[in-house]
Amino acid sequence: MTRKPLTEDSILKRILASCRPLSGSGVRQSIAVGIGDDAAILRPTYKCETILTCDWFLEGTHFLRHKHPPDSVGWKCLARAVSDIASMGGTPRCFLLSLALPASLTGPWLDAFLAGLRRASRKFGCALAGGDTTRRDDVLINVTVFGEVKTGRAVLRSGARVGDTLYVSGRLGEAELGLRILKQTKKPAPATNPLTRKHLYPEPRVALGRWLSGARLASSMMDISDGLSSDLPRLCAASRVCARLELARIPGVRVPKEASLEGIDSTRLALHGGDDYELLFTVPPHLVQIVPVSFQGVPLTSIGTITRGRNLVILEDGGRKQELVASGWDPFRNKL
Amino acid sequence: MTRKPLTEDSILKRILASCRPLSGSGVRQSIAVGIGDDAAILRPTYKCETILTCDWFLEGTHFLRHKHPPDSVGWKCLARAVSDIASMGGTPRCFLLSLALPASLTGPWLDAFLAGLRRASRKFGCALAGGDTTRRDDVLINVTVFGEVKTGRAVLRSGARVGDTLYVSGRLGEAELGLRILKQTKKPAPATNPLTRKHLYPEPRVALGRWLSGARLASSMMDISDGLSSDLPRLCAASRVCARLELARIPGVRVPKEASLEGIDSTRLALHGGDDYELLFTVPPHLVQIVPVSFQGVPLTSIGTITRGRNLVILEDGGRKQELVASGWDPFRNKL
Repeated sequence: MTRKPLTEDSILKRILASCRPLSGSGVRQSIAVGIGDDAAILRPTYKCETILTCDWFLEGTHFLRHKHPPDSVGWKCLARAVSDIASMGGTPRCFLLSLALPASLTGPWLDAFLAGLRRASRKFGCALAGGDTTRRDDVLINVTVFGEVKTGRAVLRSGARVGDTLYVSGRLGEAELGLRILKQTKKPAPATNPLTRKHLYPEPRVALGRWLSGARLASSMMDISDGLSSDLPRLCAASRVCARLELARIPGVRVPKEASLEGIDSTRLALHGGDDYELLFTVPPHLVQIVPVSFQGVPLTSIGTITRGRNLVILEDGGRKQELVASGWDPFRNKL
Repeated sequence: MTRKPLTEDSILKRILASCRPLSGSGVRQSIAVGIGDDAAILRPTYKCETILTCDWFLEGTHFLRHKHPPDSVGWKCLARAVSDIASMGGTPRCFLLSLALPASLTGPWLDAFLAGLRRASRKFGCALAGGDTTRRDDVLINVTVFGEVKTGRAVLRSGARVGDTLYVSGRLGEAELGLRILKQTKKPAPATNPLTRKHLYPEPRVALGRWLSGARLASSMMDISDGLSSDLPRLCAASRVCARLELARIPGVRVPKEASLEGIDSTRLALHGGDDYELLFTVPPHLVQIVPVSFQGVPLTSIGTITRGRNLVILEDGGRKQELVASGWDPFRNKL
C-alpha cells in the first residue's frame, strides 16, 4: 500500500483522530479549545493552582528506535511528564505533544506510537489539547503537561525539615535493570518481563502523590527520575538540609537468578539507576506513625532522616559513614 | 579560560540566573514556584482562561547555526510561541524552555542565546517559569507559553462568517526576503537591514491582538507563520467558509533595488513567504468602518472577503479568478 506524502496538517489530523478523548470521560472538562487552533484554551478549576511541566524524550538520548517499541515511546513520553505533576501532589488534566519525526515513520510506527500515547492518556486522565509537528531525521518528542492542585497544597522539594523521615515508594533500580535486560536481548522487547515493563511502561504515582498532598502527610516531595544519588541531593539543596540514608533500608530491585545477570549489584542499581519514577518524600516526626506500609499495593519504605547541614547526603552502611556521590543519570555525562 | 564540565544542574542554574525576571516588573505575578522544582506552579487570574501553546525551534529545520546569531535564536524561539498567544487575543504570562545542546555550545553561545531570550522575555512580559535541558549534537529548542485571556474573549480561527472582511497586519513576505538576504550574505548576519531583522527578531503582534479581542472587532484570527497561502486555508477550514482574496490589495514586501535581488517577485513572497508573524483576522461588515488604517504604526489592510463554500480560497487578479494553491512553508515538503 502506498501512502500519499504527508503534510503537517494531515499528521495533525491523524494525531487528533487517534487521541480524541472519549466523550463523557471527564478528561475533556478543562479543555475549551483543543487541537486545530493556534493554541489550546483551558479552563482553570476554581481555587486551584496550575502545575506546568515539560519533558524531553529524544531518540538516542532517552530511547533507542531499534530497542524501544513505538507504543512504549508513546506511553513513556507522557508518563515521564505526568510523574512531575504526581510529585507535587497534583492531578494531570491535559497535555501538548511536540513531535518531530522522519517521513518514513509516519506510517505504522506513528500508529503504534499514538496507540501507546492514547493508552497512557486514558490511564492518567490526561487529554491531548494541542501540539506542534515537524519533520526530522531522528524522532524528537517534547511533552508539556498541564496539571492542577488545590491552592497552597502543592508539595515542593523545599519543604523538608530537620528530623523529618525520608520515604520512598516502590523498589529502586528496577527500570535500570529492565533497560540492561532490554539491551542484552536480541529481540525488540520482552514485554512479559516485569523489569523491562517497568522501564518501557512506567506508572507515575499520581494517586499516591495526591493522597500525600491531600492528607498533608508529606513536607517535601519529588520523583526519582535520574536516580536516588542524583535526585536526593536536589531535594536537600532545595530544602537547605542534609540527609542520612540507611543503605540497608533502601528497597532495591530483586535481581533474578540468571547467568546473564550475575554480578549485578542491587544496591548500586537502587542508588544510581534512573527512570523509576517512584516518589521520594519526607514526613514530619509526629505524622510518621500514620504512614502505611503500602499504598494501593506500592510499598512505602522509610530509608533515612533529614539532618542539619547543607546539600550533603551521608550514606550509613552498618556503622560506616561515607558521603554519597551523585552518580545517577546526567545527559551531559552519560549516554543511553 | 577552561570551564568545568557542565552538568544538567549547572546549566539550569545559568539559565535561571540569566533569565530571572526583574522584581517588581509585574511579569512574576503569575508564577508561584518557578525553576528548581519538578514543575512550575502558576496562579491563574480570576475570570480568565488559560492559553497554552508549544513550538519547535530546531537547528537545520528552523534556523542555521552558522547563519543565525545565537541571540536571534534566543529571541525568536520565544517570539514565535508568543505569537500564538497574540493570535488569540491573549496576554503572555510565562514560558517553559526545553533546550538540548552540545557541550561545546554551553559557553559563549549559550550566554548570547540567553541574552536574546532575556530581551524577548522582558519585551513580551513573559517570564521564564521552568524547563528541561539535555545534551544533543544539534541545538533543539521547544518553548511552551502560558498565556491568559478574559473568559470567552479568545478569538478563534473558527469565527469567520460569510460577508466578513479579511484583514492582515504589516507587510507580508518581509521575513522570507530577509532570510534570502541572510543566506546570500557571506558574513554571519547583517543586523542593520530591516528585512533580515524582521526574519531574525520578529515582533509578535501582542498589543494588536489584545486590542482586537478587547474591542470585539475580530470575528476570527490567526497568525501568519507558514505563509498566507498555507494559513488562510486553515482559517477557512476551521470556519467552514471560503475566501476571495484580492491580489492587488495584499501589502507585499518592498523589494530593494539591488542587483542581487533582481527578479524577486514581491507578490509571490507575500503569498507564500513564512515567518512574518503578522495577524490575519476577519471583521463583521458593521464593524469595518471602525478598523483604523494602522495600529501603533503597523498598517492594517483589508485584502478580501469571506464567502460561502468550503475550504477554497479564490485569488482575484483584476477580473481573472484562480484557486490559490497552498505553497507556504511545510516541514514535510520544504527544507530551510
